[in-house]
Amino acid sequence: MPSRPRTSSVPTPTTREACAELDAADPLAAFRDEFVLPEGVIYLDGNSLGALPKATPGRVADLVEREWGQGLIRSWNDAGWWDKPRTLGAALAPLVGAAPHEVVVGDGTSANLFKTLVAALRLNPGRRVVLGEPGNFPTDLYVTQGVAGLVDGVEHRLADPDDPERIAAALAAGDVAVVLLSHVDYRTGALRDMAGITAAAHAHGALAVWDLCHSVGAVPIDLTGCQVDFAVGCTYKYLNGGPGGPAFTYVAERHHADARQPITGWHGHARPFDFTGEYVPAAGASRFLSGSQPLVAAAALEASLEMWSRVDLRQVRAKSLVLTDLFRSMAEAAGLAALTPRAAERRGSQVALRHPDGYAIVRALIERGVIGDFRAPDVLRFGFAPLYLRHVDVFDAATALAEVVESGEWRQPRFAERATASGPVT
Amino acid sequence: MPSRPRTSSVPTPTTREACAELDAADPLAAFRDEFVLPEGVIYLDGNSLGALPKATPGRVADLVEREWGQGLIRSWNDAGWWDKPRTLGAALAPLVGAAPHEVVVGDGTSANLFKTLVAALRLNPGRRVVLGEPGNFPTDLYVTQGVAGLVDGVEHRLADPDDPERIAAALAAGDVAVVLLSHVDYRTGALRDMAGITAAAHAHGALAVWDLCHSVGAVPIDLTGCQVDFAVGCTYKYLNGGPGGPAFTYVAERHHADARQPITGWHGHARPFDFTGEYVPAAGASRFLSGSQPLVAAAALEASLEMWSRVDLRQVRAKSLVLTDLFRSMAEAAGLAALTPRAAERRGSQVALRHPDGYAIVRALIERGVIGDFRAPDVLRFGFAPLYLRHVDVFDAATALAEVVESGEWRQPRFAERATASGPVT
Repeated sequence: MPSRPRTSSVPTPTTREACAELDAADPLAAFRDEFVLPEGVIYLDGNSLGALPKATPGRVADLVEREWGQGLIRSWNDAGWWDKPRTLGAALAPLVGAAPHEVVVGDGTSANLFKTLVAALRLNPGRRVVLGEPGNFPTDLYVTQGVAGLVDGVEHRLADPDDPERIAAALAAGDVAVVLLSHVDYRTGALRDMAGITAAAHAHGALAVWDLCHSVGAVPIDLTGCQVDFAVGCTYKYLNGGPGGPAFTYVAERHHADARQPITGWHGHARPFDFTGEYVPAAGASRFLSGSQPLVAAAALEASLEMWSRVDLRQVRAKSLVLTDLFRSMAEAAGLAALTPRAAERRGSQVALRHPDGYAIVRALIERGVIGDFRAPDVLRFGFAPLYLRHVDVFDAATALAEVVESGEWRQPRFAERATASGPVT
Repeated sequence: MPSRPRTSSVPTPTTREACAELDAADPLAAFRDEFVLPEGVIYLDGNSLGALPKATPGRVADLVEREWGQGLIRSWNDAGWWDKPRTLGAALAPLVGAAPHEVVVGDGTSANLFKTLVAALRLNPGRRVVLGEPGNFPTDLYVTQGVAGLVDGVEHRLADPDDPERIAAALAAGDVAVVLLSHVDYRTGALRDMAGITAAAHAHGALAVWDLCHSVGAVPIDLTGCQVDFAVGCTYKYLNGGPGGPAFTYVAERHHADARQPITGWHGHARPFDFTGEYVPAAGASRFLSGSQPLVAAAALEASLEMWSRVDLRQVRAKSLVLTDLFRSMAEAAGLAALTPRAAERRGSQVALRHPDGYAIVRALIERGVIGDFRAPDVLRFGFAPLYLRHVDVFDAATALAEVVESGEWRQPRFAERATASGPVT
């Protein structure tokens, strides 16, 4: 059972020396050497795009040059390509507290949200309400709207999962079919009570679908213990699977016989090589697959999941809490207000700050080599990936932030100019 | 305007020397040097998984090591990641006779079929019949069944597109909303009359969705000239984009304002970086996007599309007709019956043969270094990719096939043993 510490187990360090001492004793310290980290950069955006593992380029090149170039079509069998959604799913399963056969890797988060939402609605045919959250990542809201526009009678309601009473009140209406929430809020970094909300949903006759994009690889997750029905997530944030890399879908074993998703491609068929004309869903989570997956991208994920198989998520969580406490306390000392909940059990591995000139501050900070990101209207986001961030890095980043704010260097006009896009930093 | 020769413009060669002469005069000959081709292999399965372009490993490594490893999150802007579905779509557009803004690259063929089918049904709200073909690639049939199971009242009917009278009769019923057909049949290699069928569909009030998986890169395609409404296709067959590489979606400009697809993720939003709660579709084909795309796989496609930008598809088609005539005539001389239509205007770039022991024959042939594939119950499939196949290769492959059949070497029991999967050779 993954543990979830109520507070960080070590006092927040207050000097760079104390940080260096924590680094010297860090059981995760060796993982830093497994990453490519650009010179002069402190990377606090691993909650948006995780850093590159050193093993990845070689694995990708091997797939491209040997498996594809030399093996050609034979690699669908000889290199295990056909089963990759299952073998990668099994490799990912321990990170979310699932059994190996409950997770498949493939497609993107948006498509997987669509599939699981429709499947969950079908398992609860007497009800048509999807309960979401007003501040969820837009794709969760948009996909729910897409389902509501397609499936007769589906209604989209919203309640704040950071306020248990609002969720309870929404569920008490007795007509909620499915609850769809993010485990960690992409903006605020708030961590939701997966066990409590899922239990409440079940008690009121609803199913629970969780979006794990901002929690997988950052906090221990126990989908089995929480009795979650479905979950989806991406692999390119804390899991370091590569930009836009394949997403995953969790289907609780108890739903394997009855769950039906709508994008019924041939990879989800029970006997795909019979090439019959009638769709018959495969056993288990495989029925959530649709078509062929981009294997060049899957190779990148394979390399990072090998690394993650050696990671103890309890150590990740313990270090994450220290890093976020450290950054937050220094940011607050510099006069910046935090949006992220303070309690350890209520926050993921990021610190969100608010400032009316947050955009310029983030840009000035990037020029100093500290990469975070900005979310309109006024949120500065900083993510903390314990595998490649040292305590001294976080100390130095927070020091740089304080200097940028206190010196006013962010007031230079060039920092206020908006790029054409903010970048899909989620 | 792409031309479609009625017959191959050169007589079918009958000797290896004649083949060598054709190779010496081949305007596409230089492209062969742009591919990695394993020693001792004649690859006739490029209709399933195209060969690896030599430029691809370097482009993939550059994305992984420089854009991801060094650029990190900044590459979403600096390396053009955000716009990749559009820039790759624009690069692919000339290959299908589309305008650059009518094609986007992303997701898989199955998901794109789902999106375009729903969008087409919505554009024809008074009708609920999807007209497909009984022998279509299974995912086309299964996805249509998935849509029919989800959208009220949708009915799936089938008619053989190789028989114009059956299609005409089905359309004459007057209740067909959408026709969904494959441009080239994955099994038989039959090429369908895109212009004629699309015009007939329109004349009867139906929209036309074409699956180009087995024709893109193999035959000239003129979606604009044929007034096609929507099309989808994969990039990993004749386009050499890499195993499972991202698929594409074509949306005719006249539908840009009104087409609505159901997997409404944030990449399809009009202003994704506003992070608003209400989905508003983007202008143009971009509204068919859903979520982030696997960019490591997209880099592979980028490399191959650069090569394809230098290819004249009329030359591809002319050579393809000679190669398929050559192989077919030699196979028939060896006593094998062809399933592929004989007329040039009715066939793509593959030759399908029938033999009750086809599986063992294909395996015996693979042991000789000639890679084709098998489709139950009795179809031997051979695809011809004119960019990397010489006339002498095809002569040698057909000679090997004749020898395998005539010698009876395929009767060795080991060739009859079935592998666990036939491989997703489509």
